[in-house]
Parts: sequence; structure tokens; C-alpha cells
Amino acid sequence: MVGKYTENDLRAVLKEISLLEENQALLGWDSLTGMPEDAAPFRAELLSYLAGKSFALQTGTEYADMLTYFEAHPAELSALGQQLVIHERKKYDLNAKIPTADFIEYQKITSLAQDAWTKARAAKDFSIFAPYLAQIITYKKQFISLWDQGSTTPYDVLLDQYEPGLTVAKLDQVFGEVKAGLSELQAQLAHGEAPDNQILSRFVAKQAQSDFSMELAQKLGYSLKKGRLDDTIHPFMEAMNRNDARITTRWDEHDFQMAVLGILHEAGHGLFEQNISPEFDYTPFEKDMAMSIHESQSLFNEVIIGRSEEFWCNEYPLLQAYTGNTFADIDFDTFYRAWMVTKPTLIRTEADPLTYPLHIIIRYEIEKAIFNDDINVADLPALWNAKYAEYLGIEPTNDLVGILQDIHWAGGDFGYFPSYALGHLYAAQFFDAMSKELDLPAIFASKDYTPIYTWRKEHIWQYGASKTPQEILLLASGETLNPKYWLALQTKIYSKVYRLA
Amino acid sequence: MVGKYTENDLRAVLKEISLLEENQALLGWDSLTGMPEDAAPFRAELLSYLAGKSFALQTGTEYADMLTYFEAHPAELSALGQQLVIHERKKYDLNAKIPTADFIEYQKITSLAQDAWTKARAAKDFSIFAPYLAQIITYKKQFISLWDQGSTTPYDVLLDQYEPGLTVAKLDQVFGEVKAGLSELQAQLAHGEAPDNQILSRFVAKQAQSDFSMELAQKLGYSLKKGRLDDTIHPFMEAMNRNDARITTRWDEHDFQMAVLGILHEAGHGLFEQNISPEFDYTPFEKDMAMSIHESQSLFNEVIIGRSEEFWCNEYPLLQAYTGNTFADIDFDTFYRAWMVTKPTLIRTEADPLTYPLHIIIRYEIEKAIFNDDINVADLPALWNAKYAEYLGIEPTNDLVGILQDIHWAGGDFGYFPSYALGHLYAAQFFDAMSKELDLPAIFASKDYTPIYTWRKEHIWQYGASKTPQEILLLASGETLNPKYWLALQTKIYSKVYRLA
Repeated sequence: MVGKYTENDLRAVLKEISLLEENQALLGWDSLTGMPEDAAPFRAELLSYLAGKSFALQTGTEYADMLTYFEAHPAELSALGQQLVIHERKKYDLNAKIPTADFIEYQKITSLAQDAWTKARAAKDFSIFAPYLAQIITYKKQFISLWDQGSTTPYDVLLDQYEPGLTVAKLDQVFGEVKAGLSELQAQLAHGEAPDNQILSRFVAKQAQSDFSMELAQKLGYSLKKGRLDDTIHPFMEAMNRNDARITTRWDEHDFQMAVLGILHEAGHGLFEQNISPEFDYTPFEKDMAMSIHESQSLFNEVIIGRSEEFWCNEYPLLQAYTGNTFADIDFDTFYRAWMVTKPTLIRTEADPLTYPLHIIIRYEIEKAIFNDDINVADLPALWNAKYAEYLGIEPTNDLVGILQDIHWAGGDFGYFPSYALGHLYAAQFFDAMSKELDLPAIFASKDYTPIYTWRKEHIWQYGASKTPQEILLLASGETLNPKYWLALQTKIYSKVYRLA
Repeated sequence: MVGKYTENDLRAVLKEISLLEENQALLGWDSLTGMPEDAAPFRAELLSYLAGKSFALQTGTEYADMLTYFEAHPAELSALGQQLVIHERKKYDLNAKIPTADFIEYQKITSLAQDAWTKARAAKDFSIFAPYLAQIITYKKQFISLWDQGSTTPYDVLLDQYEPGLTVAKLDQVFGEVKAGLSELQAQLAHGEAPDNQILSRFVAKQAQSDFSMELAQKLGYSLKKGRLDDTIHPFMEAMNRNDARITTRWDEHDFQMAVLGILHEAGHGLFEQNISPEFDYTPFEKDMAMSIHESQSLFNEVIIGRSEEFWCNEYPLLQAYTGNTFADIDFDTFYRAWMVTKPTLIRTEADPLTYPLHIIIRYEIEKAIFNDDINVADLPALWNAKYAEYLGIEPTNDLVGILQDIHWAGGDFGYFPSYALGHLYAAQFFDAMSKELDLPAIFASKDYTPIYTWRKEHIWQYGASKTPQEILLLASGETLNPKYWLALQTKIYSKVYRLA
């Protein structure tokens, strides 16, 4: 008996979708790095054509029919094939459950909202953006009721889309611990000895920054045979495929820390992409990674390694070698303490790794208030400002440096912010698990980080999106998400830097 | 009454073909400028997918049906629509007239031939390549008989594919005049005073070369809002659309002339693309320009402007300004004479603009011998060497610097070489026509080349591929191809440089 479809049919559709996405990724990368400015309208036309092709493939009735067929005949598929069908069904339903007219209207509103957000920022006035935000929220609540398959709270539905299996109950507990622990640590640091970080503004030429940063990134395993570095205003990593994961950065010759940590960060994303198992080529498992786990790998590079005393005490001489006499008068201790200064900021993207999670917790609590407690949109700025005053001890003087700072809500991206904080927590939990298996002090002393690279490849990267972050974390560390590793690490590090007794 | 197809249907197919070509152009550009080396197999897969899409569109029965319909109902199309149908029919038949099995076999043989050519080059031995070349020629002769619609000679069929309307009879006359005129001029130059070009090997930093060359290119009208410059081993221009025509170059800090003239050359190609009329967007007329007319525009920049005494006598101070004291001791006359040294070479791509056409004439005569006189492939190297000895006064010492230097024949590209020489001749004929309408001495003195830019845009670039080179030439200069303009210009220039009485 011959079935209506074979696994090859499924893989052929997935391959075509992958090829189009690879193509779109390159066009996107090019738009931000190389494209002449007048080419924008032509590029928009081409992207729209390709998006149409891709959309037609993924939402077509033939594809739906194929998924339905295999759901009824799973035995005709390999284990991977079955897993792909489950994964694709979830994606398919996300769009298919929304009436087309509503989807189109919603797209239009998010587009208008992004314009309104820009105008509101110029005027530093949230009320310009508020009516659009209210409409987005109304649609989103309607969609939640369509998507919901028995979640405890409405916001759980959104969380699950970005972080499969994560719940409000779990996040309340996790973020609660983080908030309490951080509050305690910050109270202690206030009595500590704050370092001076003036030396970080010394002139370091762009070329030296680039050479040094790329040497570090490559030592951590980022391959330039499968990547490259370009300049952009907003740094990012874009992967076409596992052999083409490109990073970008920006430069300030009087703030070299920005490029060093920025390059380590993007190279961390690149490492993940470059090391996904080839068995997932041309499947969604090569590209549908949750943002939290992806961010855990960029942050592992940037924060776990890039802020580690053990790492820097061995690599500081390399920085000195790349920068002539610039830091000849600065001993390691002075350098490292400058490197680690922490200070609350109003802007999330300028936050240091210690205060960063607080920015996310504020957004998480507000999103919960929106979807679970139906708070009024007009009341959001006051809530925002009050939480900044309470958690970070500083209060926005206007909406631009307050509630208007992120574009996410204008695009309807609710439930996404927590991933940024999860990345920090996962990275620390991975590091703890790794430290139980590897002789990290010896590895840092050797300056050969191959065992760290190998551990990460084996426990994290190879899986791509074939496992959820929660599954990867459990396999690698033996337990579910536990914020104590992050808190313990930060407490240890900053207590020393701030010379607490 | 409603027709089977409307002009919109035709334009929609043409637009999709154009979008795919634009996309493939960007992938090609990226492969040569930015792509990490390990990405090659993934890129090949993507290109093959897109080529398949494009091929299916252009050779599909629906498209053929559409062309046939409009050939029967031309009145249902605008004038542009009718012209597009004629253009597309010619392209369609080129492939459609060849039996599929033969086409596939031919593709295979050209692929093998290119490998054999590479091996033959390594061994400097034409006989390794000869059997593949013989097979290609056999196929090509068969195809000619299928394509032929009453040409005078078989080789006319090939010429017409690259240069519509051009014939062996015309080229024999044109190239005959060039050969005779050049022979006479070279005999005179042998008695002239050869300049010393040692100063051209003085060190000029890459950045200074780039800044200077790009300033010149932009003065001639190349727009960086619609283009950019990158480094490659083999310089080229690649256009995605009229607002995205990118150029590349290579650098030698002890031979700055290479990059200056190379950038002017590629910017000339870019100028053509950037200035095609928007009415041809998303039609084949934005991209099917004959190589001869395209090359006439790169050569106009490189040779007509880039070797002009009037141009350099005004721009040499700019070069001096960009290069510190490097040429402070060199007066203009010494500089310009060094710039213009001419010397026969064995390699076509290293030839100066005076001897270049001879390389092409040799190839033209050999191709004619192959297709019109059925010469034996085994006899080609001897014929090649004899012609180099006769026309250029130097003889290849092996096949690598002789008949194996060009890849064209390995790809089956016969009839293509003449375009390179036609570019030189057209450029000079355009320049002569322009000089009758513009006050060129005043323009060069002003260093504002806008009138030249405007003339070229109006008489050449705007048409894209909507007119043949012969039509454009006739409209712009009032006569058909006439080599006397090129000969007169070269004679005037080199007689002065070589201080003939």
C-alpha cells in the first residue's frame, strides 16, 4: 500500500521553506550592512515577493493536508519526521486559528502603531501611542481566546509561544527569587567600594578593538570560515545556514568595552548556529530556536566568559599587547574592577548584566497586569515609573526614557521580554553544570577553551530547535530552571569587585 | 470581448523573472564579496533552487502560450508590450529550438570542458582541452543549423546572438580597417620616443587610491546612493536593479593605475545600470543589454576619459593632493606620458587600450575559421601563435600564455569576443558625436562633467536593452559603426605621447 504522502514530500516542502528563509536572511543582512540607500524600495518589493511565496507554502491547503495525513499515519515517518510534524502543526495553528480578516487588520494596526510609537518618542508623549497600543491589546486578547488550549491564565498563552512550557506560576517564583536576591545584593553593594572605570574611555583604535575581539571570539570557537564581521548601527547576528552565521558590531574608540562585549555576544549567537547538527539542515530545527536559549549562548560569551575574572586575568595581557602602551600603567585588578562597574540605568539596552533582569521583571509584571488583570492602558506610564523607582531606585523623567523605550509592544510582541532574562539565568545554570564536569580553572589558565566549546556543542548547540530550552536545560544540568545559580554567581563576583567584607 | 491574456499577465511573468534575477544577482555578488568559504555548498543549493524556478517560468508552456497569443493579437498590447514580446520570443526560441536531450548533454560537456581547461592550463598543454573543445564545437554547429534563419555564414548566427544585426561581412570590413590602421600607427610609434612609466610603481596607499578613484567615479556621475565599492580578486560590476549597481576592485599599492582605471571602468558599467529609464523596471530591458554597448560605457570611463590628456591635465592636481608628496616632483607631462605607455602583451586582460583590439581580432579570425572554414581543432594553437607573432610581434612560449588564456570557449561562448573590441570602437564613436554637441574643452577645464553625464544618459543609458547597440549608435552618432573615430583618436593621442614629428 502506498500512502498519499511520503516523508520525502514533507522534507521537500520543509526544504523549500528553509531555502526561502535562508534567502530572506541574506537579503535582510544585506539591507543592514551593504545595500545602497536608494535600493530600499526595490528590496521591499523583492522581500514581499519572497514572503508571499513562503507564506503560500506554509499556509497552503496542501501542506495542511499533508500534516493532517501524517498525524493520522505517524508510523509512516521516521522519529525525526514525526517530531517535525508536531513542530509544524503548532506553527500552522498559530496562524490558522485567527480569522484572515482579523489577521490582516491586526497587521495593519501594528504597522500604524509603529509609526505612532516613533511619533510618540519624538514628542516624549505616551498618549500618542496609547490608542494604538490599546487596539493591539484588544486583538491580542481575542487571539489568546482562540489559541488557548487550557492555560491557567491568559498571559500563559503568550509565554508558551516564545518559551514552550513556561508558565506564569513558574516565572512568578523565579523572578520573585531574582528580585529578592538582587535587592539584598544591591543593598550590600551600596556599602561597598565602587571601582573607577575611567580607564575604559581611553582611546583604542577600531582596528585594535576588532583584532583583539575577533581573536577572543575565535578562541571561544566562532569560525570565520562560517561567518564574518561587519559594521552596523545596531549589532546583530544573522544566520543563513550553519556554515554562514554572520555578526556585526559598532565601534566607539573611547569605549572599547562596547565592541569587545558586543562581538563576544554576537559571536555567541553565531556559535549556536554554526554548531547545529547537520541532520537538521533544511528543517525548521535549524532555525526555530527559542530566543531564550539563543540569548543564553550570546550571554554565556558576553557575561559568563566576558565578565569572568579567571578569563580576564589570563587574557588581559593579550589586550595589553593589542593596545600598545595604552594600559601599560594599569594592573589587572584595576582593569578588572573598572570592567565590572554596575550602575542602574533607565534604558534596558544600556544596563549592565547585574541590573538587566530588573528591567525585564518590570516589563513582565506590566504585561501580566495587561493580560491577566486588565489594567488600563492610560495607567501604564505611572506603573512603569513607579516600578523603576522601586526596583532600580531611579525614575524616568519622561516617557522616552521610560515606557516608550522599546519597540516590542508596538509590534504586538507580548510574552517575549522574559526570554531576555531567561537567557541570563540559563547561561549561569549551564555554567554551573559545566563546572561540575570540567576543570574550569585549569582551562582558563591554559587559555585553550576547546573543552568549553565542546561541552556547549554537545549539551546545547547540536540540538538546534529539536528540543525546547526546558528540555535542553534539564538534560544539561539535571534540573529545571533554578535562578539560584545566577544569583550565587553574581553575588560572588560583585561582592569581590565591590570589596565587601 | 475579453482576451485570453492581458498585458498585465505578461508584465506579471516578466516581473517575477526580474525579481528572481535580481535575487540571483545579489547572491552572486555576495558569493564573491562576503560569503564565508564554508557556505559554498549551501549557496550552490539555493542558487540551483532559484535557477530552477526561473527556468520553469521562462520555458514553461504557459509562457510560450502567452507569447503565441500576443503574437496573434499584438493590438491588445501597448507599444512597449509588443516590443517585449518580440524580445522574449527571440530568447525563448534560443532554448526551445534545441532538443532537451542535446541541451542537457551540451551543458554536461561544457562543465567537463571547464575542468579540462583548468587541467590543461596547469599542464600548459592544449591537447588536454582539445577533445572537449571539439565536442563543444560539434554541438554548436548543430545548434547553429537549428537557429539559422537565413544567415550568410554559420558564424553570423553566433554573432547575432550577442550583437543583434552584426554580420561577418561588416566585421571583416571594420576589423580590417582597425588592423591596417593599427599596423601603420605601431610602425610609427616604433620610431617615437617611448615614455618611462617607473613613477607609476611609486607607493600609493590603498585608502588614497580608493578615495581618489571614487571621487573621480562620482564626478563622472556614479552614485554611491545607488552603489558601493568592495574588494575582490576579479573586479566586476553587478546590478540588482537601477538603484543598486555595485562595483568591486583589487588593489596594488605599487601599481595604483590598476585600481584607478579599474574603478573608472566598473563605475562606467554602474552608470549605465543606474540610469536606465524607470519605465523598464521589472522588464528584460533593464538587464538584457548587449555586452558591447555595456563595455562601451565602462571603456568610455576607463579609456576615453581615463586616458584623456584634457581630463588629466585638470585632475592631476587632485591626484597629487590625495598622495601627499609622492608626485610632488613629477610635472604633468611626465605623469601623463607615463600613464599612456603602450606595449604588446601576450595576455588579453593585461593589454593596454591601443593593442587590445588586436587580441580580439585574433580571436575573431580563429572563431570564423572554426565555424565558417571548419579548421581542425588540433591546428588552433599554431594558428593562434602565428597570429600573435604577425599582429603583435610577440609569440606565446606555451599554451597557458597562448590559446589557453581565456575561459570563454570552454563555456561555449563563441561570437562573444568581438563585443570587447566593439566596446572600444563604440566609445570613440560616441565621444566624437558628443564632441560635436558639447564644448568638451570647456567642460574638462571646468571639472564639472555633468553635461557629459547628461549626454550619455540621454543618448545611451536610458534605453537599457530596449534598443540594439546598432540602433543606439545610429541615433546618437548619425551613422553605423565606423572604426575611423577610434583610429583617429588613438593616432592623435599616441602620436603626441610618443612625440612623433
